[in-house]
Amino acid sequence: MGVSGVGKSTIGSLLAKALDIPFFDGDDYHPESNIFKMSKGQALNDEDRLGWLQTLNKLAIKQLKSDSCIIVCSALKKSYRDILNRTIESNSKWIFLHGSIEQITDRINKREDHFMSADLLKSQFDILEEPMNAIKMGISLAPNIMVEVIKKELLATSEFGLFGLGVMGKSLSRNLANNGFKISMFNRHVDDVEVDVAKNFKAEFNELSEAKAFDDISAFVMSLQQPRRIMLMVNAGKTIDYVIEDLLPHLSENDILIDGGNSNYKKTKERNAHLKTKGIHFIGTGVSGGEEGALKGPSIMPSGDKEAYKQVQPYLEKISAKDKNGLPCCTYVGPEGSGQFIKMIHNGVEYVEMQLLAEVSTILKAMGQNPDNISSTLESWKDTASSYLLEITTAIFKKKEGDDWLVNKILDKAGNKGTGNWTTIASAELGVPSTLIASALFSRYISFYKEERILLSRNFEAHNNLELNITTNEVLEAYQFSRIINHYQGFKLIVEASNKSSWNLNISEIARIWTNGCIIRSTLMEDLVQVFKETNNILTNVELIEKLNQYKPSAKKVISQCVLNDVTTPALSEAIHFLNGITTEYASANVIQAQRDYFGAHTYQRLDDPSGKSHHTNWN
Amino acid sequence: MGVSGVGKSTIGSLLAKALDIPFFDGDDYHPESNIFKMSKGQALNDEDRLGWLQTLNKLAIKQLKSDSCIIVCSALKKSYRDILNRTIESNSKWIFLHGSIEQITDRINKREDHFMSADLLKSQFDILEEPMNAIKMGISLAPNIMVEVIKKELLATSEFGLFGLGVMGKSLSRNLANNGFKISMFNRHVDDVEVDVAKNFKAEFNELSEAKAFDDISAFVMSLQQPRRIMLMVNAGKTIDYVIEDLLPHLSENDILIDGGNSNYKKTKERNAHLKTKGIHFIGTGVSGGEEGALKGPSIMPSGDKEAYKQVQPYLEKISAKDKNGLPCCTYVGPEGSGQFIKMIHNGVEYVEMQLLAEVSTILKAMGQNPDNISSTLESWKDTASSYLLEITTAIFKKKEGDDWLVNKILDKAGNKGTGNWTTIASAELGVPSTLIASALFSRYISFYKEERILLSRNFEAHNNLELNITTNEVLEAYQFSRIINHYQGFKLIVEASNKSSWNLNISEIARIWTNGCIIRSTLMEDLVQVFKETNNILTNVELIEKLNQYKPSAKKVISQCVLNDVTTPALSEAIHFLNGITTEYASANVIQAQRDYFGAHTYQRLDDPSGKSHHTNWN
Repeated sequence: MGVSGVGKSTIGSLLAKALDIPFFDGDDYHPESNIFKMSKGQALNDEDRLGWLQTLNKLAIKQLKSDSCIIVCSALKKSYRDILNRTIESNSKWIFLHGSIEQITDRINKREDHFMSADLLKSQFDILEEPMNAIKMGISLAPNIMVEVIKKELLATSEFGLFGLGVMGKSLSRNLANNGFKISMFNRHVDDVEVDVAKNFKAEFNELSEAKAFDDISAFVMSLQQPRRIMLMVNAGKTIDYVIEDLLPHLSENDILIDGGNSNYKKTKERNAHLKTKGIHFIGTGVSGGEEGALKGPSIMPSGDKEAYKQVQPYLEKISAKDKNGLPCCTYVGPEGSGQFIKMIHNGVEYVEMQLLAEVSTILKAMGQNPDNISSTLESWKDTASSYLLEITTAIFKKKEGDDWLVNKILDKAGNKGTGNWTTIASAELGVPSTLIASALFSRYISFYKEERILLSRNFEAHNNLELNITTNEVLEAYQFSRIINHYQGFKLIVEASNKSSWNLNISEIARIWTNGCIIRSTLMEDLVQVFKETNNILTNVELIEKLNQYKPSAKKVISQCVLNDVTTPALSEAIHFLNGITTEYASANVIQAQRDYFGAHTYQRLDDPSGKSHHTNWN
Repeated sequence: MGVSGVGKSTIGSLLAKALDIPFFDGDDYHPESNIFKMSKGQALNDEDRLGWLQTLNKLAIKQLKSDSCIIVCSALKKSYRDILNRTIESNSKWIFLHGSIEQITDRINKREDHFMSADLLKSQFDILEEPMNAIKMGISLAPNIMVEVIKKELLATSEFGLFGLGVMGKSLSRNLANNGFKISMFNRHVDDVEVDVAKNFKAEFNELSEAKAFDDISAFVMSLQQPRRIMLMVNAGKTIDYVIEDLLPHLSENDILIDGGNSNYKKTKERNAHLKTKGIHFIGTGVSGGEEGALKGPSIMPSGDKEAYKQVQPYLEKISAKDKNGLPCCTYVGPEGSGQFIKMIHNGVEYVEMQLLAEVSTILKAMGQNPDNISSTLESWKDTASSYLLEITTAIFKKKEGDDWLVNKILDKAGNKGTGNWTTIASAELGVPSTLIASALFSRYISFYKEERILLSRNFEAHNNLELNITTNEVLEAYQFSRIINHYQGFKLIVEASNKSSWNLNISEIARIWTNGCIIRSTLMEDLVQVFKETNNILTNVELIEKLNQYKPSAKKVISQCVLNDVTTPALSEAIHFLNGITTEYASANVIQAQRDYFGAHTYQRLDDPSGKSHHTNWN
């Protein structure tokens, strides 16, 4: 395709010869009426073109049945190409020849045998809609070299590239291959440390027999069809910037980079802007599901340029988990950064769900249960509180190693990879009270001071938890109570960020893609899909209000008993105080405002002055 | 002062004439032995100089008794100037004439009647130690113009400049003036909004009769002696950068800017580096005390270049509060950023102390006390829990407006100006679990959602706090318990930041400057000065361990009762969970590590493998 005079016929026939397939010039299929019109210097209109394009489409379909062919046709508008492509989208390839208006005018003026006048060229440039998904070829090179380059591009058979073969990168590669996609995989070479990683990985799994393995960036990029789709699964942080700089010299305009790591959403915005100046699209994408989810179907949260997203949508949707209605747990989230933002919140909610289970198991242990008992208790909660994290925690407590339970042998210092930290920071910056996420984060931090904990445990009186007067059902209700508060706080952060950044996020849709594939999938999340169709505020939903009111007496009893018996349950405890706080009409902040006005003359507003005017008192 | 040949005699005598005071050439006072040595081309040694310098010092002392004088002398080393200056430091002014070695060689070669040979010049440049606190004058200008400029500088009588006359700037200005310092005050002019602010302020207070008032930056800067000392008391954030850019063209090398606002410590580091390239010193300084403290003596936390600090030390120490031993509540904190960092933590601790008092008053109210009763209760705590914030909260609850208490009329939406927010962020970034600061911050955030609180209060069952079975003494003990935890967490942040940034902060000294003048002054802080002489960890101090163990039963009872009775006390509650957490030898983080390994193959360490190796389990 390309404007008249760009050299379609020359390059097309040379290419057909090189590939040993038939060549057809679209112009030969114009009806007489079109040829007459053009020879009089009149531009064709869309009606003139319709029948002609349909003829070419039929020609392509027929040829594809036996072998293949090259057809040249200006095909300047997307709607024309859609007609030409009908029913053969996945078997056709576009080659877009392009040059400047001066280059082409010059060429046409040199020809005598062509029935197209140069005057029409301008109108062609006016209507040209450049294709996103074509091999784009400038016309400055010699024809035989152009043909060589195009041939190489056509033989690049991989549709999707996976850059970085860590735990998640490997799982996603197998997932793509299992779904029938032709992929290229890259992992860097580091002497003695990372050697033949891609090659060895390919050899390990049957489904990767068609995949291509690389440790050379240039060869990896060249193996991908244009526009290239490259998913980066490398460590978040500086690494991703280095990788982008390494890739850039090898990329072409309109190629698409997908960052599937837990990158900071502010950085994603910066990278998006940087890559835009280079003509490269950037899709920041949350991916959740861990090792197994990535393999069998993760939840995917892409964001960024919507048009570019359409180029990767079929791949991401196909490999994603499916919700209970069979729809992909992958949706276009919103503008740049929003996908990584909601992934960050997802992880914040995940931190809390994990912390609540850790606290619950601490309580059950204090009630005298051994890990097997705890596992059974959690197992019995499946019907009312089903979630992936409950499920794996049930399995964890069951796991034995020799005579003892494995969980008893694990060092109690919890790691974190930044997202819980960032969620807390985002919460502080946005002015949203995410008390449970901060609590879960800080519990991990406390765990990290293991040496100090050992030292201090000797300085203080032993914890006394012998008289825990509660039932496991009350613990379950306290747990369920806190989970609802956790989800309120997490989605509140999303709503406030969406408002502040004008992302216009669809909260129900976000809950929907979190109903499967991801770590925080649960029946509660399934309920929230419906809830968020009516309100963005969980605490205004009648069913959830009822549940909270129902669970609250147990939550109060459990927490008060834990406090009296030295059982450490900061997140469960905070859930109660939070609900009390957010449902208090008159809070104690008037005292704080008075203090601030007293010592700093910060002024205050008055309940009896709706104008919002600032008042100051000389308190002495 | 200045090297030979720089023009000291010429300029000195002209200046003496212009000021109508006697002129003395130091060289006329050399003993014969020195003149002989110099005429032979030999350099004088320090022994040669001692008697001569003492003679000049005596001359100056004698002259000062009647009037004043100009003395010229090379005075190349600081030790020489110290001798010349002896006993008259505060009455002498230095003028440093300086030129390049080429300029001066050129001049000397043109003279014939001078007994100093040009060969000695190089040795003079070698030993020259440039003065920090002199009027520095280049020699390119015509002598009469040089004399004009120097005269102007000498008449610049203000020692200290105050930029920005908000609440704090005004109080500090009066404080400086009350302490006998000659100050210049600047406030910008904004049509109709800020008009003659400095002038009107000066007119308002007797102590400012000698102070100079400006709304023109250039005139303000020119009124200050060099090196200029300018304290910026403007809004933190972008404003301070604009102010710095406005000031820069008017400043001279070695001038000193003091940022006394609540600037972010990371920004202070950046500004310090930026100003260093311009030859300007930057002292980032926390100032706490509010309006009254700033007037009568605040706590001051300067940091940055230590040599530059010495130039402002006498001023800051003089206006600061004094501790119980009469020492200034002002100390050089550490490298750039550290002063603002500890001020930020100060404010974080302040947030919590305020929040604890708000929660305590909520409990007392739920126990049936009216504001007068609350005030009396707080008043009765003075002996055991004395602090400035307790004192003002006592006064707040007493304050009436008509028939009602004023506190009842204040809108319960608490403001914040960033430091609590930043402390929470710093805590997340440093990996330190500052649970109380986050809790206090989030309580303010919750208060801010007033409209949502009103809405939700109608959705949920009414809070039930009718059966609060506790005594006021138990509330006091819960309060005291939480305050110790608050101080542990705050100082922990300082210790960790100091370690991470190699600031080498003196924790006891920080506690000491917080014993008076600042908002968080208290008897507890006084105790901590001693505690931190032995340990940086509060929870290893025997007396405080004893107190926590003593208070804990009350804290547990109060919190469990609050939870059962829907009294919102998140910070008090968190204090208990924190102490339980940090004194737990085996935490529940092993469960979290198992979960992370289960879904993300994040691996874990084992209790029975001290090598710290990473282990991974196939949990299925």
